[in-house]
Amino acid sequence: MAMVCLSDFEAYAKKYLPKIAWDYFAAGADDCTTRDENILAYKRIRFRPRMLRDVSVMDIRTKILGSEISFPVGIAPTGFHQLAWPDGEKSTARAARAMNICYIASTYSTCTLEEISAAAPGGLRWFQLYIHRNRAASQQLVRQAEALGFQALVLTADLPYTGKRRDDVRNGFRLPPHMKVKNLERAFEVCKMSLLDPSVTWNDIYWLRSLTRLPIIIKGILTREDAELAVRHGVQGIIVSNHGGRQLDEGPATIDALVEVVEAVRGRVEVYVDGGIRKGSDVLKALALGAKCVFIGRPALWGLAYKGEEGLQDVMRILQDEFRLSMALAGCASVSEVGQHLVQFSKL
Amino acid sequence: MAMVCLSDFEAYAKKYLPKIAWDYFAAGADDCTTRDENILAYKRIRFRPRMLRDVSVMDIRTKILGSEISFPVGIAPTGFHQLAWPDGEKSTARAARAMNICYIASTYSTCTLEEISAAAPGGLRWFQLYIHRNRAASQQLVRQAEALGFQALVLTADLPYTGKRRDDVRNGFRLPPHMKVKNLERAFEVCKMSLLDPSVTWNDIYWLRSLTRLPIIIKGILTREDAELAVRHGVQGIIVSNHGGRQLDEGPATIDALVEVVEAVRGRVEVYVDGGIRKGSDVLKALALGAKCVFIGRPALWGLAYKGEEGLQDVMRILQDEFRLSMALAGCASVSEVGQHLVQFSKL
Amino acid sequence: MAMVCLSDFEAYAKKYLPKIAWDYFAAGADDCTTRDENILAYKRIRFRPRMLRDVSVMDIRTKILGSEISFPVGIAPTGFHQLAWPDGEKSTARAARAMNICYIASTYSTCTLEEISAAAPGGLRWFQLYIHRNRAASQQLVRQAEALGFQALVLTADLPYTGKRRDDVRNGFRLPPHMKVKNLERAFEVCKMSLLDPSVTWNDIYWLRSLTRLPIIIKGILTREDAELAVRHGVQGIIVSNHGGRQLDEGPATIDALVEVVEAVRGRVEVYVDGGIRKGSDVLKALALGAKCVFIGRPALWGLAYKGEEGLQDVMRILQDEFRLSMALAGCASVSEVGQHLVQFSKL
Amino acid sequence: MAMVCLSDFEAYAKKYLPKIAWDYFAAGADDCTTRDENILAYKRIRFRPRMLRDVSVMDIRTKILGSEISFPVGIAPTGFHQLAWPDGEKSTARAARAMNICYIASTYSTCTLEEISAAAPGGLRWFQLYIHRNRAASQQLVRQAEALGFQALVLTADLPYTGKRRDDVRNGFRLPPHMKVKNLERAFEVCKMSLLDPSVTWNDIYWLRSLTRLPIIIKGILTREDAELAVRHGVQGIIVSNHGGRQLDEGPATIDALVEVVEAVRGRVEVYVDGGIRKGSDVLKALALGAKCVFIGRPALWGLAYKGEEGLQDVMRILQDEFRLSMALAGCASVSEVGQHLVQFSKL
Repeated sequence: MAMVCLSDFEAYAKKYLPKIAWDYFAAGADDCTTRDENILAYKRIRFRPRMLRDVSVMDIRTKILGSEISFPVGIAPTGFHQLAWPDGEKSTARAARAMNICYIASTYSTCTLEEISAAAPGGLRWFQLYIHRNRAASQQLVRQAEALGFQALVLTADLPYTGKRRDDVRNGFRLPPHMKVKNLERAFEVCKMSLLDPSVTWNDIYWLRSLTRLPIIIKGILTREDAELAVRHGVQGIIVSNHGGRQLDEGPATIDALVEVVEAVRGRVEVYVDGGIRKGSDVLKALALGAKCVFIGRPALWGLAYKGEEGLQDVMRILQDEFRLSMALAGCASVSEVGQHLVQFSKL
Repeated sequence: MAMVCLSDFEAYAKKYLPKIAWDYFAAGADDCTTRDENILAYKRIRFRPRMLRDVSVMDIRTKILGSEISFPVGIAPTGFHQLAWPDGEKSTARAARAMNICYIASTYSTCTLEEISAAAPGGLRWFQLYIHRNRAASQQLVRQAEALGFQALVLTADLPYTGKRRDDVRNGFRLPPHMKVKNLERAFEVCKMSLLDPSVTWNDIYWLRSLTRLPIIIKGILTREDAELAVRHGVQGIIVSNHGGRQLDEGPATIDALVEVVEAVRGRVEVYVDGGIRKGSDVLKALALGAKCVFIGRPALWGLAYKGEEGLQDVMRILQDEFRLSMALAGCASVSEVGQHLVQFSKL
Repeated sequence: MAMVCLSDFEAYAKKYLPKIAWDYFAAGADDCTTRDENILAYKRIRFRPRMLRDVSVMDIRTKILGSEISFPVGIAPTGFHQLAWPDGEKSTARAARAMNICYIASTYSTCTLEEISAAAPGGLRWFQLYIHRNRAASQQLVRQAEALGFQALVLTADLPYTGKRRDDVRNGFRLPPHMKVKNLERAFEVCKMSLLDPSVTWNDIYWLRSLTRLPIIIKGILTREDAELAVRHGVQGIIVSNHGGRQLDEGPATIDALVEVVEAVRGRVEVYVDGGIRKGSDVLKALALGAKCVFIGRPALWGLAYKGEEGLQDVMRILQDEFRLSMALAGCASVSEVGQHLVQFSKL
Repeated sequence: MAMVCLSDFEAYAKKYLPKIAWDYFAAGADDCTTRDENILAYKRIRFRPRMLRDVSVMDIRTKILGSEISFPVGIAPTGFHQLAWPDGEKSTARAARAMNICYIASTYSTCTLEEISAAAPGGLRWFQLYIHRNRAASQQLVRQAEALGFQALVLTADLPYTGKRRDDVRNGFRLPPHMKVKNLERAFEVCKMSLLDPSVTWNDIYWLRSLTRLPIIIKGILTREDAELAVRHGVQGIIVSNHGGRQLDEGPATIDALVEVVEAVRGRVEVYVDGGIRKGSDVLKALALGAKCVFIGRPALWGLAYKGEEGLQDVMRILQDEFRLSMALAGCASVSEVGQHLVQFSKL
């Protein structure tokens, strides 16, 4: 079977992953409305393509927080990569470095931060964290990430409690015994969500700031009000995200929320978006609406499930080719030419 | 089979109830457009969830007409609970008391008001009534309800005649011989809809008021004009309802009508809503749009059909957990923080 | 099988009519978009029902052109009733008289006007006509209709040529040899559409007026411009119609066009509507939007196909009961209380 | 099987063409959203038909760039007609001449321009071209077209690179060995897309102008901005086109883009449109929105696949009859009476 587009990898993963793993990765909260809306919302955006512009030399590189990446797509933080491929996050790290893109390693990795770092020295990596009830544990992870060369911290803001994913409840989902959430093993028992502290507030950004000189990016913002608060509390970036539709169902699609966040931020910090990106032209739409870069979650896991780091590179190369082509067909030769004039919201 | 969400109970009830009973509970008027719209309309409302608010201590209690309930969901008045479970409304009353919620007992109960009261002394209960052609019969029921400790009267306004429910006509629906509408047995023959008086007008509210000191709540209001009339005629509460889509088909979904009723009422009386609530986040949406409490009809019957009072408690506990979680994920630690800022109507 | 609603008759007719006859009656032009839109457009209209109004005495009678009818539904002109039932239009006439409603007999009847008149003396009937190339033939039909006591002429304006109904082309539809378009037999060969004169213009209304003292109603108007022209040329009534979606596909649904026609007419003449009415509440919607009466086409044929005049009466009685009930549930005790306040267009 | 409407030809072609050829003709870019939207967008446009206008004498002729055509439909440039019928573009040319319509011959024809010209001397033909990296080759083609009596040049602007058509990738589509892109054989190797020059800009219009006295029409314009640029660079016509949805997916439907292009052009040059036309009334809609003529791509290929030039004439005659009928039913006797008043955009 030829792997031509991302849905080919999805079909593969659905067919070959154990059902419990597929269900875990695919899960959305409640009725999965928001998970599906993330995708549908892209379909309601129409390009306004421009013709006869010199697109013979295409430059799709961009920078995020000052680091150059080969194109504006990175790997969103998702947990438990060993469920998709034996080498887990080590494969992810290698693929990301090979593609010269940013990989946001999840706290809920099945490899340690050291293993991830050692697997692909020099790769551009950010570390995603939660604030735990035991602040010392969070502090330790932050310091470790900084020491290992992770270049930013991504604080997930939308998980004071875990969303209700019906299939996981039905399946009684838990990690197989031979897999561990290794980053948390040291300080806690494994995989107890109650580790997370639901009392966290904006002031904890100051506490986090006090621990590290790394840029802090906040992930999970969906409203202009919270975007304004994020900027005022000194973050360096915002990831517009609804956790892949796995937390509060029936919130906005991320590409819709992006518009109001970008408007509120007015360029003061970088804005990124994840959720629902399935082809290169989705990336172009997100950039046109103000995102500096997008991150993909499930498609990266499908790539891993297909062939480990090679499979993930296949996914990324397809996205890259599609992104380049859609830029050219829309009349843009470089990312700097992409702007809101390229898109309009469909009346339907 | 794990009971994870309310639709699991629906599937159970559809499978195990006699077809004629399932059809009766499920029935909507005519094309069932409004019955289904009640549910679909919730899907068009999107949350605007807020992040990093301390949601470590959740308080989901509220008060209706001064009585505290464990969370803002009650049991709407539906008839013939013995069709769902042998103990009928006695089980319903026990479950409601166990959950510390409000149960609106229907005139068309298959247990008497005394039996309902005796089954769960001290529970918070309201009594739903119609105004009958024989006013003395209505008066007797009102006095009996008051004497038995029911704490409010709920006057149903939308049933001058019974709606046309095609499946009931096809099935020739009638109660099995061993069940009776016991509350009406004394004064009338059983189950003749012509008992109801279609000449009732707003002035009859004054007559009802003259009979009792109980608060009067009017159920079945769908427009701002009638909401204003209700307030002017001195009711203590309004239930925005379209009778589960069983009366006039193609009226508004109740959650849509709620908006204009709340706007018209301007806080002068409490406003509740029923119809279409299928998960905890629907409750949150109704509260955000101004409802003080919601009432569920069919899902309560599914719970009864599953395991009697235990099953109904299962349904309520799921709703409670989902409601608490959706509040937390939307950034609200108590019901008092819920407001219109939490939601927006989808453009689609 | 119980006949509970109009779609039961549709299912019966589809099952028992010869395919070629069913296809002819069901046919719409081209993609059948307008035929289907006629129905869907009703679904986008929502009631705003009012409560607690005395609906104990219901009066659903109304008058059209001064004649009282039992409720505001009549029989639209459709051709070839013998395809549905051996007695053809004679049965239709009898059913209409029994129900005390108006029957618009079609030029393309399979019975003569004399036969129709003789079948149900004293019934309220209008005669639908086209203007033929041979004006003398039209003149003869007009005079005959007037002599036979038809009380109005309905000039069809939307058929300068016959619409393209794909199924009829595929089936090679033509009348079985034992049926005739008897009204036209005298002056012409049978069933040649080219009888109709595509050069007819508004001035021909004056010519028609010169032939008769009967009121002239124009059928097939869909725009405010043509409504204004109709009034200015002295017609007594307008039927908003798209010929059941059988002529120009992708024009407006009739209930949508009704709104602009009523607005343009400003009460100067009576406005009626046909197309897409399938239940009593559709009638109520049409009246709320300004129609004085509605006419049904295909449902009348389904009734005929079911049991001749009895079947047609069954259809009409169901519509009547549904109309009365929906009026009561919307809070109207008589047709005079029905107004635009009763409805709103859904945003969806 | 009777061929009644264009979709009958589509069904035939799908059934009888080799899968690889069908897939090539049917292909859209990426998710085929735009390909399908081209059709759906027509459905959202509603006619406002006018009645009682003399339509006894219908004149559906029009002129494009001064040449009279029998009705406002031409044949869009599509490649590889031998995939549909052995005689390829020679059959197309003959059918077009027989119908007295305009045929835009594609650079990617499987017959030479000489063969096309010789097959149907005197037919109205335009030549579609790309600007190649080797400008001398483009120049040679332009001069040859001019010498052979082609009456205009159609410069395709929307293909700096070929869109991603997944089925073609999966099928490994390429021409069978016995077919050649004969027009390009002389100067290049066959069928290498990299012949096209992605550095082309608006200034190249001036270069093209310097080579020929033929009118230049630009094809692939979708925005008002590019329409303005086209006029300013001196083209004689614009074809609003998205290449049948084969280039950038999720751009606008062409009939939607037509509106803004016509508005921007303000009558300074002729505007045409292709994409999604499937029946005569679609042509009428395009004309009402300002197109001077429409061009059909895939339906012409289905006609060829059915019976070569005869099949293509069948397709065109059906369109012609449908167009004439829809004009008459909308109340227009000649193309000059068609205007924007005839249509409105559906709110849905």
